[in-house]
Amino acid sequence: MASAPIDFRILAGAGAPAREFKAGEIIFKLGDAAQELFIVQSGEVEIRLGNRHLETVPQYGIFGEMALIDAAPRSATAVAMTDVKLVAVGEKQFLFLIGNTPHFALNVMRAMARRLRAANTIL
Amino acid sequence: MASAPIDFRILAGAGAPAREFKAGEIIFKLGDAAQELFIVQSGEVEIRLGNRHLETVPQYGIFGEMALIDAAPRSATAVAMTDVKLVAVGEKQFLFLIGNTPHFALNVMRAMARRLRAANTIL
Repeated sequence: MASAPIDFRILAGAGAPAREFKAGEIIFKLGDAAQELFIVQSGEVEIRLGNRHLETVPQYGIFGEMALIDAAPRSATAVAMTDVKLVAVGEKQFLFLIGNTPHFALNVMRAMARRLRAANTIL
Repeated sequence: MASAPIDFRILAGAGAPAREFKAGEIIFKLGDAAQELFIVQSGEVEIRLGNRHLETVPQYGIFGEMALIDAAPRSATAVAMTDVKLVAVGEKQFLFLIGNTPHFALNVMRAMARRLRAANTIL
């Protein structure tokens, strides 16, 4: 059951210059240290664990937030499926957004809840 | 690697009378409609999916939050491992807490991040 992606587009144009990756490029790897999450401004990103496809993150989707939440290394690998542009959000901005825009916090939780439900389905 | 539980004790004494369950009683079942999350005031709760143990929620831990976040049915079954007392938090109070206490939002995310990492480890 695919539901509409959770839309972080309000952040996709938020100031910082986008980072660009070519199709096939690795954005981050399992175990990397991490200081930021990403919003997909354009393109699609694959989240993978070994050879397992966990998720496709579409335009305006979010990924990499777990490292900001619990300050642990990356829990999966992110690869550009197409040429992508990403907006990075650092820890300070993340905490600001959570404190000042409850909808942001709720949308991050929704993205995580979807991943947990997907993980439980695979289990 | 067990890390310290995320502590929601500030809510464990928050007004509403606790709900009590005896060891072995089912608190909710996979697929149940859901309107609230729970804080463990005392005792321990098992989260399970079929015969698989997903998590032990200790005193001051939180569970059942996913149903409030995405308004879907319960994604797992919760069973009292000991006699337990639970404090229920409904949707309205949940949204209030997220909007007014950023630490609450962050702690909910931390609990979810831990579950996601655990799920990815099993995968």
